[in-house]
Amino acid sequence: MSRYAFLDDYSEAAHPRILEALVQTNQPQQKPYGQDDYSNLAKECIRKEIALPTAAVHLVASGTLANIISIGSCLRPHEAVISTTMGHILVRETGAIEAIGHKIITVPTTDGKLTPQGIEEALDRNAQAPHMAKPRLLYISNATELGTVYTMVELKAISELCRKHGLLLFVDGARMGAALAAAKNDLRLADIARLADIFWIGGTKVGLLCGEAIVISNPTLADDFEYHVKQRGGLLAKGRVLGVQFLELFRENMFLELAQHANNMAQMLSAGIVKAGCTLAAETETNQVFARLPNPMIAKLQHRFEFYTWEKAVDDQSVVRLVTSWATVEQQVVAFIDELQSCV
Amino acid sequence: MSRYAFLDDYSEAAHPRILEALVQTNQPQQKPYGQDDYSNLAKECIRKEIALPTAAVHLVASGTLANIISIGSCLRPHEAVISTTMGHILVRETGAIEAIGHKIITVPTTDGKLTPQGIEEALDRNAQAPHMAKPRLLYISNATELGTVYTMVELKAISELCRKHGLLLFVDGARMGAALAAAKNDLRLADIARLADIFWIGGTKVGLLCGEAIVISNPTLADDFEYHVKQRGGLLAKGRVLGVQFLELFRENMFLELAQHANNMAQMLSAGIVKAGCTLAAETETNQVFARLPNPMIAKLQHRFEFYTWEKAVDDQSVVRLVTSWATVEQQVVAFIDELQSCV
Amino acid sequence: MSRYAFLDDYSEAAHPRILEALVQTNQPQQKPYGQDDYSNLAKECIRKEIALPTAAVHLVASGTLANIISIGSCLRPHEAVISTTMGHILVRETGAIEAIGHKIITVPTTDGKLTPQGIEEALDRNAQAPHMAKPRLLYISNATELGTVYTMVELKAISELCRKHGLLLFVDGARMGAALAAAKNDLRLADIARLADIFWIGGTKVGLLCGEAIVISNPTLADDFEYHVKQRGGLLAKGRVLGVQFLELFRENMFLELAQHANNMAQMLSAGIVKAGCTLAAETETNQVFARLPNPMIAKLQHRFEFYTWEKAVDDQSVVRLVTSWATVEQQVVAFIDELQSCV
Amino acid sequence: MSRYAFLDDYSEAAHPRILEALVQTNQPQQKPYGQDDYSNLAKECIRKEIALPTAAVHLVASGTLANIISIGSCLRPHEAVISTTMGHILVRETGAIEAIGHKIITVPTTDGKLTPQGIEEALDRNAQAPHMAKPRLLYISNATELGTVYTMVELKAISELCRKHGLLLFVDGARMGAALAAAKNDLRLADIARLADIFWIGGTKVGLLCGEAIVISNPTLADDFEYHVKQRGGLLAKGRVLGVQFLELFRENMFLELAQHANNMAQMLSAGIVKAGCTLAAETETNQVFARLPNPMIAKLQHRFEFYTWEKAVDDQSVVRLVTSWATVEQQVVAFIDELQSCV
Repeated sequence: MSRYAFLDDYSEAAHPRILEALVQTNQPQQKPYGQDDYSNLAKECIRKEIALPTAAVHLVASGTLANIISIGSCLRPHEAVISTTMGHILVRETGAIEAIGHKIITVPTTDGKLTPQGIEEALDRNAQAPHMAKPRLLYISNATELGTVYTMVELKAISELCRKHGLLLFVDGARMGAALAAAKNDLRLADIARLADIFWIGGTKVGLLCGEAIVISNPTLADDFEYHVKQRGGLLAKGRVLGVQFLELFRENMFLELAQHANNMAQMLSAGIVKAGCTLAAETETNQVFARLPNPMIAKLQHRFEFYTWEKAVDDQSVVRLVTSWATVEQQVVAFIDELQSCV
Repeated sequence: MSRYAFLDDYSEAAHPRILEALVQTNQPQQKPYGQDDYSNLAKECIRKEIALPTAAVHLVASGTLANIISIGSCLRPHEAVISTTMGHILVRETGAIEAIGHKIITVPTTDGKLTPQGIEEALDRNAQAPHMAKPRLLYISNATELGTVYTMVELKAISELCRKHGLLLFVDGARMGAALAAAKNDLRLADIARLADIFWIGGTKVGLLCGEAIVISNPTLADDFEYHVKQRGGLLAKGRVLGVQFLELFRENMFLELAQHANNMAQMLSAGIVKAGCTLAAETETNQVFARLPNPMIAKLQHRFEFYTWEKAVDDQSVVRLVTSWATVEQQVVAFIDELQSCV
Repeated sequence: MSRYAFLDDYSEAAHPRILEALVQTNQPQQKPYGQDDYSNLAKECIRKEIALPTAAVHLVASGTLANIISIGSCLRPHEAVISTTMGHILVRETGAIEAIGHKIITVPTTDGKLTPQGIEEALDRNAQAPHMAKPRLLYISNATELGTVYTMVELKAISELCRKHGLLLFVDGARMGAALAAAKNDLRLADIARLADIFWIGGTKVGLLCGEAIVISNPTLADDFEYHVKQRGGLLAKGRVLGVQFLELFRENMFLELAQHANNMAQMLSAGIVKAGCTLAAETETNQVFARLPNPMIAKLQHRFEFYTWEKAVDDQSVVRLVTSWATVEQQVVAFIDELQSCV
Repeated sequence: MSRYAFLDDYSEAAHPRILEALVQTNQPQQKPYGQDDYSNLAKECIRKEIALPTAAVHLVASGTLANIISIGSCLRPHEAVISTTMGHILVRETGAIEAIGHKIITVPTTDGKLTPQGIEEALDRNAQAPHMAKPRLLYISNATELGTVYTMVELKAISELCRKHGLLLFVDGARMGAALAAAKNDLRLADIARLADIFWIGGTKVGLLCGEAIVISNPTLADDFEYHVKQRGGLLAKGRVLGVQFLELFRENMFLELAQHANNMAQMLSAGIVKAGCTLAAETETNQVFARLPNPMIAKLQHRFEFYTWEKAVDDQSVVRLVTSWATVEQQVVAFIDELQSCV
């Protein structure tokens, strides 16, 4: 019998309604390269959702492509990105941003978030023109790599700082759904669009086969963007594949609904862990749960469940990471908690 | 009523059996990033097809990605690619190869193919080290951008020349299916694997939603390849999406079957055009038909069919391009020929 | 006894007055990185010469650096350069422009020059956005790689075309001195500055140890330029080395004086060749002489002189290239002609 | 009256003997692009100095060029550099290494040096293939950015670690002279050549107008290196300019002699500061002195001398940096100490 995985939020393929939409729209001939009717409708849905009729929307197949294309399009060769030391572009994308020529200036973080103070310090440390790459774009993720979310107050402060210093604000939204569905969240997608210059909405982690939607809300960044999509390999001949999926995701708000399920499952896990007398290593804000468990308990749980040991802790304990998704089965969460309690 | 399109071979989405396979495999949890069971099986099928158990296979979502990743992985910064003046990487990929740092040395062609003589001349013209980029990789397409195919004799001559001069041979197989299904073809996929160092098999144009399979037959090129897939944005979290499709395509030889249909439809169009007393601008070897038609006839045909005018010719005639695919409906081909004959 | 070389215009080191200036200014402490008094004065001289007090001037050590830095600073990743098929950046700089990410679109030429018609055709051939890199910068050399020069009428036509199409005009001036000192020339440096957006004035080939002066006359291109100089390795700690040399070169117009000598020597060679009954392969406009000589005569001449055989011609003849410079010794020119006549 | 500068080691131009050598060798015609007699002799001297007749030597004009060319030539696109957080390539070269596509993995340091433990930790943190760039080259400076030097024991330990892990060891020798002339030093140039794979010897900071000599001791890295020199703009037409200078520098060991003077002057400053009752912020190992001085004293000293305030310290004190060079005038050092004592 195979084990149930809480490894990540992409262990299953697509939500059945997404597949159904692909089946329904499969036959009619359509224009290629994202000029099809479905892509156009999907983009219209997103523009409506963010209440910004002039925004440019581009659909691509992966988050790394979304980051490469967006950042590469915005920057001149001497311009650098500011990111936390946990930023996905810094530690999980094989140097993709450096590979297109840009330095990443790092700011330490403990909760995955950037703060105005951290940004100011990075600007100070990198001010010696022309010997230092010029900070030009701020990269944040919402939710962050640790599953934490930005509040309106926090994002506004960062946005204002960016405008004051002539920095562009870019939001990696691989887990944007999880962020917006968080209990703590007070941002709507329209707020992200207003406060950021460019951002993307992750589809892969919220039930698509693949697909991320890049949204350019700052009109000065929109020119010629599609050249970059093409040049970096992101322009699918059958762009409809992405269009159909995003249309289904945003047509009736399935986006937040699926993200909400993932967050609920994480809360259930989280509550069960605490109830069993174990400790969380961090507050559970979205769909990632970090718990500190005794090593023997971890070994036992791993007979029935798959999950990552995040870091070795002291005293025969380790921090584990449990990730839930739109597809997480509630009975498996219950089973996990039962197993955990039986170990205590 | 909308017009029927002979514009390209990606106007429809996926072959129904491909979609069915995605539906059937949707639910089970799988490892991410191409480590899933379906991708492993698909790669196994391809290795078997080329009779090269040691070949490395990597699945990516688009042809431009396949080209960027393959070429970028093989070359050092000072090394250049040789291509015909019609090469897709040269004229249809927005400078993607230059964007990762490599010069493309061009060789004139009339039929889309490279010849040993053309290659030798390019080597001669680019021999002044260190003032000229060093020719290192030969890029060809099979079928070519004009729909022509390489014969065994031709490909063998090029392969031997490459080995003699220390050049790598890379085959862009966006339309590999059409090539191998051509009447004139005498190559099998295993021959391509033996004669080339690295190549890719196009899935998008032969009935997948998206997907191309890069095959590395020269083992010295295999090391660390996956880093490049990831760095360029080609590593899908749900790699299974590509794995499932390629498995279905190669499980029972649907690959050649679908390509054969496309070629057959092109032959039918071709024959009809000739029978109607019109002239072909080039022999129809695969799924692209080039015909020289009077301009008024073109205008009339375009009331019911969509296709590209390829180039203006003399005497009120133009060359048009008609592309067929795995999805081309035979009745529409018949209707096109009827319409054509009624115009004569 | 070693042979006298007409191989190129950089076989000798520096004009004695340049060395003398380096000796005279060697001791005083100066600011580094081009902030020294000599660099400032040199830039002032150049600004005065071009009658453009707002122009930005940057000094770098080599022509390839000047091209990399200038082009890289102007372009976004999807933007391409237009050049003739003889362009130095295309055929003699090891793919340096592609190495920083940009495609070069080529236009055939016979005399080394671009024409409005050639440019228009290149624009037409590269108009399919977003599948083709976007033409954005026009690269020309004056004098060209064949030693020909642009007239005011020609350069004006190109400049107007550029402005009409939103193209930047960039002039590689490795042999700008030779161009401006040509009998046929009717341009002043100030005209170049007015008609081009950015250009450079070659120092190496007109008597400096090394050094080229990049001039940015279009103010929208000046921002942050020095970052690019530094990032590409062009910012010398002892920038004074370049400043002192350019100051000496432009202080009292030694620039044109030395270029004039080179051109005069070429004219003398040219006239001698014709007088001896041999044929020029091209009109001698600057400091390069192309002559068609019988192969036995070439062999005999090469006992006493070094020069390149440019191309094999028919009937036991070849085209040779003779290059003169600021340092060419008149007696050696006379000796060459004597030798030539004795061979007839 | 202008102030005397202890700002850096490139405030003066060249040592008079270097200029004299340029004057003496100015006239004879020579081959271009580093094929001249002087460059050949200079390379021979360096090979002899390092006792490695097979080493390849390439001369370039700036340290950033030396770093770009060396690192770019060694690495494939997915490979990364390891450097301390103080590394010159990381903080003072405008993202030059990222601009050619490579990530820099950082290791914290307090004294400017890398340790085996720091390297091992960096390898551990960057081991998740293919999601992280692959560590491949270790970048260290000797002397470091803080003026400290590596001992034989330290460098050997690093070198062995590199070989164990398949890492290349690259030494930035902008201040190699100062390092080898340090009292604490027990390395010869031949040791550097033996323990590193590739390194460069700084000429600019030890009395040349400009020039750094890249030495490739690992023969597998030597192939095609000159293409990279050319492609990055580092191949001077009059390569003799660098050849003549390095020949003079290494002909009779002026290299160490001049470096020794710089170090002696730093020791004199250092001793004077301590004798005056002030504190050093770091031990003075080479030609950089870091001292903690009261702010009013700094202000007073700056009436007669130029130097940088390195960091604000507590209690109305700051750390200042004083740099000496081959050109530092002993009377000025004496004057500085006198002034300092008069302030106490």
